Parts: sequence; structure tokens; C-alpha cells
Amino acid sequence: MIIVLKRGLDKKTIEDFSTSLKKKYNVEVNQWQGVNETVLGLIGDTTAIDIGTINAQDVVYSVRRVQEPYKKANRKFHPDDTVITLSNGTKIGDGSLTLMAGPCSVESAEQVTEIAKAVKVSGANVLRGGAFKPRTSPYSFQGLKAEGLELLLKAKEETGLPIVTEIMSESDIDLFKDVDIIQVGARNMQNFTLLKKLGKLDKPILLKRGLCATIEEWLMSAEYIMAEGNEKVILCERGIRTYEKYTRNTLDLSAIPIVKSLSHLPVVVDPSHATGMNWLVEPLAMAAVACGADGLIIEVHNDPPHALCDGAQSLTPEEFDSVVKKVNKIKSAL
Amino acid sequence: MIIVLKRGLDKKTIEDFSTSLKKKYNVEVNQWQGVNETVLGLIGDTTAIDIGTINAQDVVYSVRRVQEPYKKANRKFHPDDTVITLSNGTKIGDGSLTLMAGPCSVESAEQVTEIAKAVKVSGANVLRGGAFKPRTSPYSFQGLKAEGLELLLKAKEETGLPIVTEIMSESDIDLFKDVDIIQVGARNMQNFTLLKKLGKLDKPILLKRGLCATIEEWLMSAEYIMAEGNEKVILCERGIRTYEKYTRNTLDLSAIPIVKSLSHLPVVVDPSHATGMNWLVEPLAMAAVACGADGLIIEVHNDPPHALCDGAQSLTPEEFDSVVKKVNKIKSAL
Amino acid sequence: MIIVLKRGLDKKTIEDFSTSLKKKYNVEVNQWQGVNETVLGLIGDTTAIDIGTINAQDVVYSVRRVQEPYKKANRKFHPDDTVITLSNGTKIGDGSLTLMAGPCSVESAEQVTEIAKAVKVSGANVLRGGAFKPRTSPYSFQGLKAEGLELLLKAKEETGLPIVTEIMSESDIDLFKDVDIIQVGARNMQNFTLLKKLGKLDKPILLKRGLCATIEEWLMSAEYIMAEGNEKVILCERGIRTYEKYTRNTLDLSAIPIVKSLSHLPVVVDPSHATGMNWLVEPLAMAAVACGADGLIIEVHNDPPHALCDGAQSLTPEEFDSVVKKVNKIKSAL
Amino acid sequence: MIIVLKRGLDKKTIEDFSTSLKKKYNVEVNQWQGVNETVLGLIGDTTAIDIGTINAQDVVYSVRRVQEPYKKANRKFHPDDTVITLSNGTKIGDGSLTLMAGPCSVESAEQVTEIAKAVKVSGANVLRGGAFKPRTSPYSFQGLKAEGLELLLKAKEETGLPIVTEIMSESDIDLFKDVDIIQVGARNMQNFTLLKKLGKLDKPILLKRGLCATIEEWLMSAEYIMAEGNEKVILCERGIRTYEKYTRNTLDLSAIPIVKSLSHLPVVVDPSHATGMNWLVEPLAMAAVACGADGLIIEVHNDPPHALCDGAQSLTPEEFDSVVKKVNKIKSAL
Repeated sequence: MIIVLKRGLDKKTIEDFSTSLKKKYNVEVNQWQGVNETVLGLIGDTTAIDIGTINAQDVVYSVRRVQEPYKKANRKFHPDDTVITLSNGTKIGDGSLTLMAGPCSVESAEQVTEIAKAVKVSGANVLRGGAFKPRTSPYSFQGLKAEGLELLLKAKEETGLPIVTEIMSESDIDLFKDVDIIQVGARNMQNFTLLKKLGKLDKPILLKRGLCATIEEWLMSAEYIMAEGNEKVILCERGIRTYEKYTRNTLDLSAIPIVKSLSHLPVVVDPSHATGMNWLVEPLAMAAVACGADGLIIEVHNDPPHALCDGAQSLTPEEFDSVVKKVNKIKSAL
Repeated sequence: MIIVLKRGLDKKTIEDFSTSLKKKYNVEVNQWQGVNETVLGLIGDTTAIDIGTINAQDVVYSVRRVQEPYKKANRKFHPDDTVITLSNGTKIGDGSLTLMAGPCSVESAEQVTEIAKAVKVSGANVLRGGAFKPRTSPYSFQGLKAEGLELLLKAKEETGLPIVTEIMSESDIDLFKDVDIIQVGARNMQNFTLLKKLGKLDKPILLKRGLCATIEEWLMSAEYIMAEGNEKVILCERGIRTYEKYTRNTLDLSAIPIVKSLSHLPVVVDPSHATGMNWLVEPLAMAAVACGADGLIIEVHNDPPHALCDGAQSLTPEEFDSVVKKVNKIKSAL
Repeated sequence: MIIVLKRGLDKKTIEDFSTSLKKKYNVEVNQWQGVNETVLGLIGDTTAIDIGTINAQDVVYSVRRVQEPYKKANRKFHPDDTVITLSNGTKIGDGSLTLMAGPCSVESAEQVTEIAKAVKVSGANVLRGGAFKPRTSPYSFQGLKAEGLELLLKAKEETGLPIVTEIMSESDIDLFKDVDIIQVGARNMQNFTLLKKLGKLDKPILLKRGLCATIEEWLMSAEYIMAEGNEKVILCERGIRTYEKYTRNTLDLSAIPIVKSLSHLPVVVDPSHATGMNWLVEPLAMAAVACGADGLIIEVHNDPPHALCDGAQSLTPEEFDSVVKKVNKIKSAL
Repeated sequence: MIIVLKRGLDKKTIEDFSTSLKKKYNVEVNQWQGVNETVLGLIGDTTAIDIGTINAQDVVYSVRRVQEPYKKANRKFHPDDTVITLSNGTKIGDGSLTLMAGPCSVESAEQVTEIAKAVKVSGANVLRGGAFKPRTSPYSFQGLKAEGLELLLKAKEETGLPIVTEIMSESDIDLFKDVDIIQVGARNMQNFTLLKKLGKLDKPILLKRGLCATIEEWLMSAEYIMAEGNEKVILCERGIRTYEKYTRNTLDLSAIPIVKSLSHLPVVVDPSHATGMNWLVEPLAMAAVACGADGLIIEVHNDPPHALCDGAQSLTPEEFDSVVKKVNKIKSAL
């Protein structure tokens, strides 16, 4: 941690501040005198030092970390890729391409099973589907909830596909005990109470990037889960909010190579939510695979115009089949 | 709701689509033929129609609402200002200026009571203080939790100041029964499960704007609370995330007159979190009052350099006293 | 164009407004009465109607275009792809992949020629290089200017590679008469005087997307050039400004399929400026090709650590060679 | 300047790099060894060192400035406020409130003179008006150009009000010789060729903040003008581009106290362009004055619904008169 002091301080003030840092944080302090500035460098483990507290000191002009503030999610301390194995043998993060597909929201047994069978034939190895739906409007369809989870589990039974589905409240955790991967949505990425509870489970968590989360904040949210003991975190890039309004969000594909460099966790991409437009799913899925995504999560609906939610971004099973063929070509080319 | 159709559709397709809209949504449909475009206008209550579903129809090029998607929070349907009265008689939204002040986090009985007494003397009429603290890092101080709430209640007893404090989980609602105003933080603005639970209470809710929430999304989150029956919502602007990095966030003061025009709910401003820098609190507090804020919520600490959280943005009681004097001058001038 | 009127207007006011629109803009006006709103639809060519003027009318609540405001750049009116042919036979926009490579700034005859030869061997078909350099600081190296252009032309002579280089002022246009493609930088994307002057030339223009330009604004800037007669515009996505600070900008790859759908102009991608980090060039170049880019423009320097500008984002010739091999694999797979 | 080196370098590599920095930049280099990191501190004048070049070195992990990269615009080196005096004695930056008002674009002699007289009566001390208009669309009204300048000068003659008007091209500089303040628009904030030319004049320049310019970039653009000798720069905050779409831009009022702390230059605020809505001008003008703006620049039109440009954000003379009364009340209260 590097601290730039305000100008014009006398020697004693600087010494006293240095000493107080050493005592409080058990670090060594290196002092360096520039032409106009005095800079202090803290040596030791500074992960837990609160930058705000340092900034609040009268003598401080600015502070900056040299070390990343996350440990368990940090590739520096865990150089090997994390690989997560699901019930059907699918491995996420081992260099293969995981394909998660299914409807935005579970609507009926027939719907979800029909879609599950179709996407499995095309090559999907995980079934996605929403039972609890976070909707901007209280007047929109909120999902089938517990009943939706049961329908997903039935579809799993019939097809053998492990399932991934979103949790919206820590009170519902018990309902998710047979779910293979629990998804944390973008709006809950910093619902720290929920993250801590999920950290007590022994179950993969798909952590979507928040609508305006920095890569560091996203990794810090992974750290919240991991710090409690659950290291099975899958990161999911799903577009960030920018000034551009043609698409719902702006897919940040640079996040893939960056996260894979900073962290050992697998990263999947959701091109459906990123853009909100089904015709953009194919080119962006291909781009995601080309720059190293460990998997894709794609919305597929057997009847998009009658979908209860987000039909505009859903592919038909036929369109999904075409996307799979194209991303597999890219994957083979690499 | 206005729907622009794709080009080149034949008459029958357009008629069929029109008829299906009428039946499904119980609306009238007005059709209008441009040079290249056909446009449909839906007449009736379209609040609950999902834009995504319409967009998913093969024949649709684009859709747009004419009506706002919120009702209970909408000034068009409730022209009179909402006024909220607290236990000590303080009214929020009646044209007066409510001053909420106190420490970022509650640290001890002495700390919070000392600060409470000081800010009361300066003119604060609500005590703020964090017991449950949402922190980016799992390794940062997370607040005194239930104990912190008790210390706040003691300070309330001693000073008579009603209290406002943040909730982070719907499981904790019972702990908040003696709290005067429950705060929902920016990171939980779209924690819809929590919002619905708070909608069942008969207690004012201070709803902070999300880090990248549009004004419409913010009002929709208020609508979540109100739709459940609790209409005592206070909105709080606290800065939005932009590309500018000099300040932690960018305070959006235009949101004040805009929200007051779209909605009847009171709006307060948090200049402390907006900037993260204590020396910017005074000018921005003054600006907020000048453009119509119903109140301010300001961090005050008796010893900022030793604050356990966010010291860099805290004022000393003396600095707070100066801010109050200045904002009162502005208020009187209006 | 669709105009929503304010509530509560009487019939005569609405009629008068309707009539004035018809007369002023030579359009037909369709009126439609909702439950609370009156909506007017304008039929005819509304491209030149100023939205601001309509918005300024007392009776208007909101206005929205149905048609895109650009014509010459619009695929609806020009369904076939624009293909641009350069002096060495290279075609841009014909389905092939154009590779533009070279140093950020021209430093010496040896440097630029050495790099030109190297990138040609790897497969580049256009040489890039900066002679006039837009720098944030007046104290940074500003380029060799006219001398730099001459060095580029020499390198062209020696290698046969056509050249692309940036113009910073309309006063310099004469200096660019032997340049094959004139580049307009992100900071000048809305320097309308410059755009108009370039529209008088018969020479390809590489138009970079502005730092915070929407896709529509970018196409409108292309329209500025095309409206003057020069239809040889190549669009270049180079990253947009967002809140994320890990990279210099956020590369918006969704812009590629979107622009190719809205417009007939070719689109190339600059992964070097988008991220500012050389190790991210390869994965993002691959992603760009996977989602349909017509070309890439990449910074290559024979000695990045001693580059006078932007060394951190430059590849060595060897690294560039590796990128070319990989993007070609992707291109073949498609 | 602080340089963090990559991990795992041997001693000699570090020594060699240190030595090369000393030689190349004529600085002293202080070395400090952390647990995992080696950090170098450069002592001396680092303003002209290119951060990108340092970043490009193989051994470098990250670099950061400690000093601001601007000198002439820097309050540290020029503690006293810059005060600019106009032909009619108006002083900008001396603690008074400068009021610039007038039409978005000059349309006729009658229009501009009528408005000029009206705003003068209300208290304006500078007349604004656009002759050269930067418009997103090539099909929109582009201003009366040279003729518009003449009409402005006539209005100046009749009213005695100094004038401020926008330049769009360095080729037009001669036309501006009788203009009192030359405005550089947001889209040209980084048109460095233009800035340098304006730096050779002895005339105040009103430099608008770019649509997505950071405060530092804005000050660097001021530095471009000042470095050429012209130190009469007035900064103008006019809203930045964010994800929020209710207003055209988001007015960043925190920029006022920040710029006044970092720089000695005066700052004025343009609430008209910031929001694009005339009813928001009053509250935001009041807020701007409350937090320390040196002046306001406001669009006033005698007939907004028939304005050729931006009528929606224009005030009538009566509305302007009301705004002036209110901002003066705020100013007196301070």
C-alpha cells in the first residue's frame, strides 16, 4: 500500500504517523522523500486495511493498493485453474466448453422438459431456467417459484442434465438443495448476506457480474463466498451498463482474458442478457468462445413470442442448434 | 404503448397481430400507416404488459411506453406531496428541511451518543448510524449488527432523535421494529424480496438510488414497496457511477427536480457517500438544498481519523454545524 | 416520427398544432387518442425535422423517431455491402479480413520500414502509422508531422503496402494527398468541419468511434462525410469509455454485428487502443474476427519499450505474427 | 511517479532499469522492497514523462503519477484565482456572478438584439449566441456562420454587452477578432490543433468540458491553450454522458468545487445543455450558484417554439428574469 502525504508536513508529524501505522497494522513502513511529496510504502499483509480509514487521516493526500484486495480468488496465490465437476460428469474450467441453455423462466412441465430435451440433443450439458424471477416491475410475472424448481428437477430427472437456477433470497436456500448450480443474479451481486450464506454450502455458485460492477468488485464478491469456505465459484459476464442504448447492456468481452489472468476461477458468458436481442446471441457467443470463455449460458424457448419473460432475447431450439455448431467450429479452430 | 411493426408485412398478418393484442391485454388497438412503417397504438391500462414479450413477436420492430410503468409512486395519480411524520414530530416532504446526521457505523455507546447530542444541538432532527454495514471486502469491519441497533436505540432514548439505519437482510426485519426509518442501501435497491417484505410494514423506508439505477428503475423499486401497502417511501439520491474517478460517485442533482416532478415522494440527498470526500460535503449539501431537496443525510464522526468505516467522508461535529448554518441560509433565501 | 402530447389539451389546440406540422414539414399527421394521452404520427420524410424544435412546443410531452436519421449510411436504402478497393488490390468489406498494422507513431525511416516489412511478411495488407499524434498532454511527443508522412510514403514505396494515418486538422488535407486511407481519430469524430472537408475528397476515410459516441452518432458522423459525396467510409470500433478502469476503454464488440445490420459500411476493430494492454490484443482480435469484423488495425513496434508513444499496447512483429495466425484460423473456421 | 515492478525480478534487472530511468529522465530513483513487490519512486519533474512508455517496459507491473500532469492550470503553482476582465468591465472569477445569456443560434438581427436587450435588463452581463453550430445531423440547421457573427457584433454595439460564441474550425479564427470570448464546444475539447491556435491569441477562451472528459483531461485541454501563452481560460461544466437517459446529460456539479480546488481558473455552468429541458434550468442554476460557480451560461429565446435549434431547453426572457432573481437570492445568502 502506497500513501502519498499532504505537502508541507513537518518531520515529527510524519514520524508519528509512520509509527502509528506500524503499530496498528503490524507492517513495516518505508519512507521516501520526493521534491514536493512524501510517500510512505507499507510492507506486509495489507489486505484487511481499510483504504477509507487511511484516507481519513488529516495528513494523507491519497492512498493506493499495490496488492489486490482478494486472496482466495487470486491467481497469484492459486496458480492452477479451478475445475468444477457436475453430477453428469461435465467439467467447467478444464478447457472444454460448457453449454448452459434453457428458458428464461420455467412455465410448465411440458415447456421445460421439451426445451431440455432439445438443447441436450444440440449439445447443452447444463439446463438453465428461472423459477424465482427478479423483475423491474412488481406487476410483471415473478416466476413459478418453488413449483418452478420442482419442474426443473423433473426435467433433470428426465434428461440427466444438471440444472442452474437463480436464488433471490437467503430464506429460500433450503429449496435449492437438489439444484446443481445456484445462480446469483446481477442485482444481488453485492447482497453480501446472501453471498455469505452461499459460502457455507458445498455447491457451485454462478456469480453474475453486477450491472455496474468493476472486475475487482466482482472478484471481491466471489471472495465473500470463498472466504466462508465454498470455493466453487463460476463467474458470469452478462454485460455492463453504459451510455449506449441500442443494446440493453454492453457485453464486456475483455473481462474474460482479464479475469482469467487475475483469478483461477472459470468464466462463462451470457450473450442473451447482455444484449436483449436474439439475433445478437450468435455473433457474441462466437466472440466469447474465441477469446477464451469456459462456457456459455443461453436462453432458449420453444415458443419465444409466447414466453412469459424475455422472449425477445430467446433463441428457438433450432437457432440454438445452429449457434452450438458455430461455436464448436471456433473452439476446434483454437 | 406504441408498437412499430417490421416493414413489408401483409395486411392479414397485421390484422391478426392486432386482434391478438386486443384479446390478450384487453386494450383497444389503433393502427396507423406511415410511408414505410406501420405503427400500432395500444389504448387502455398497459402498465402490466411486458415490453419484452411484445418485442419477442416476429412482426415487431420496436415498442415504447407512453405511460410511466409506475402507479402508486406516480404524481399524475397522486398530485399531492407525500408527507411523512416521525415520532419527534419531524415532517419529511412538507417543505421543511430534514437533517439526518450521524456516524457511518455505530462503534460504541459513547461514540454514538456523543455524536447524537452534538448533531442535535446543530439542528439535526434524525440520527443516522450503521449497524449492519455492506462492505466491498469480506475482510472489512461489518458493523456491530444487533448490538449496534441497541446502541442506536439508547442514543434515541437519550436525545429524542428518531433513527434511520440500514437493513441488509429480510431475516433481520424483526430487529428493526423500534427503528424509525429503515434504510435500503444502494446495493439492495433491486433486492426485490427485501422490498416486498418492507412493503408489508407500516414504517418509513429510505430507499437509496442504486449505483447505476435509472430514475425510472428507482421509482419502480419504490413501487415494489408501495404495491404491498407501505406508501411511506423516502427516496435518497447518493451519487451514480460514471467514468469520472476523481470522486467515488457523481452526485446527480438533476434527479431532485425530476423525481419531484414525476413522483409525490420526498427526496433527500446524501452528499457524503456521493463523493467520498468530506470537503465536498458542504458545497454539495448547499447545492442540493438550492435545487429542492427535502432533506440531507450526512456522515458525522467525533473522530474521523479513527472511524472504523468511511472516515474520509465524515465531518466533525464542528464542520457539520457549519454546514447546517450554510444550508439554512440557502433555505431561508428561497 | 411519433409525438405524445401533454395531457388535458382541448381539441382546437390539438388541431392547430396538427395543421402547423403539416404545413411546416410537408407531412401527413395521424392522430390517435389514448385513455389519457393524445399521440400524433407524422407520415413522410422526417429525417430533417429537428427533434429539439418539436420538443420545444408547449403542447409536446415527448417525441420519438421511427425512422433512422441517416440515409446514405443506411442499409435499408443501400442493401449491398460497400466494398473499398485499395492501390494494392486489397478489398475492405468484401468478406475477407483486412489487416492494418504498424507503429503508433512514425519515429524514423528505419523504424517504419523495418516494421512495414515485418508486418507484410506476416500478412498485413495495410501499413498504419501516426505522423500527427493527438496527445492528452501538450508536453508529450506530438508526432513527426509532415516529415512522418514522408517516411510513411517511403515505406509504402519500399513495401507496396497502402498506408492509413490520422489527420488532426483540415488545414493539413493537402499533405494527405498520397495517403491511401485518412484516419479520423476518436476525439475528432464530431469535428464536423473536418468531416465535411473530407467529404469532398475521393479517398477512403477510416472513421473511429468517439470515446462516448452512440452507434447512431457514429453513423451520423459517417453521414456527414457521405452527404458531401465521399461514400468510402470505413468504421472503426476502438473501445468506449465506461466506469471500468482496468482497461483504458471497453471494447464494444456488439457494435460490429449491429453496425453491419444498420449500415452497409465496412467495420474494422482496433484492439490495441481499446484496451491499452498488449497482452489483450490477441484474445480481442480473435473475438472481433469471430463476430464479423471486416478487418483489424493493430499497433506493432520493433522495440515497444522504447516506443515514443503507447508502447504498452504495441505488439512485437513476432507477437503480431502469432496473432495473424490465430485470427486466420478463426476466419477459416467460419 | 511511482512504479510497481513485476514479481520475481533479479537484483541486476532492477538496478539496470533504475539506472536507465535516472539517465533518460534526469530524476532520482528511490527503491523500496515490499514482501512481494518492488516499488520505485521517481523524484524530480515527471510532468513530461509518458506513462504509456513506462508501462511498456517488460519489468513494469503498474505506474502512477503523484503529481498532477498540468502546471499552468495548477493551483499549487498559482494559488491566486485567475480573474478575467471583459470590455464592459465585467470580471469573471472575482467572486461575483457572471450571467451569460442569449439564443442557442443567432437567427436574425431582430431576434438577437431583442433577446440581448431583454437579458441585459434582467442582469446578464455577457451575450451568448451561436453562429457556427455543431449539429449531430448534417441535415440540421448549421448556423448563420459569418453573418451570424456580424449580427452578434451589432447586438453588442447596441447593448454594450460583450459576446461569447463558438468556434468550430481553426480556419475561422480571423472572423472572431472582435468576439470577446471564444467558446470551444464539448465536441472540440480535445481538438488539439484548435486549442494550440487559440493559445496564441490574447483573448478569453470558454472551454466546455467534453461529453465524457475527466476533470483531469479537461484541465489538460486548458493546459494546451495556456502552454502556448494564453492564460485566459474559463472552464464550463455542461453535463457529462452517463447511462441515465431522462436528461440529455448529467450535470456534474461536484466538478465546481473540485476544479476550484485543483485550479485557479474560473468555472461557469451551462444548465441548458446539461439537461436539454427548460424547466430544469432554474433549479440547476440555483444549485450551481450554491456550490460556487463563477457564472452561468443560459439559453434564452424570445420564441422558443420557433427557435431553429434547441428550443426545448431555451427560457423565455420572462423565465430568465425569474431565474436571475432566484440565483441572486442564493448568491446574497452566501
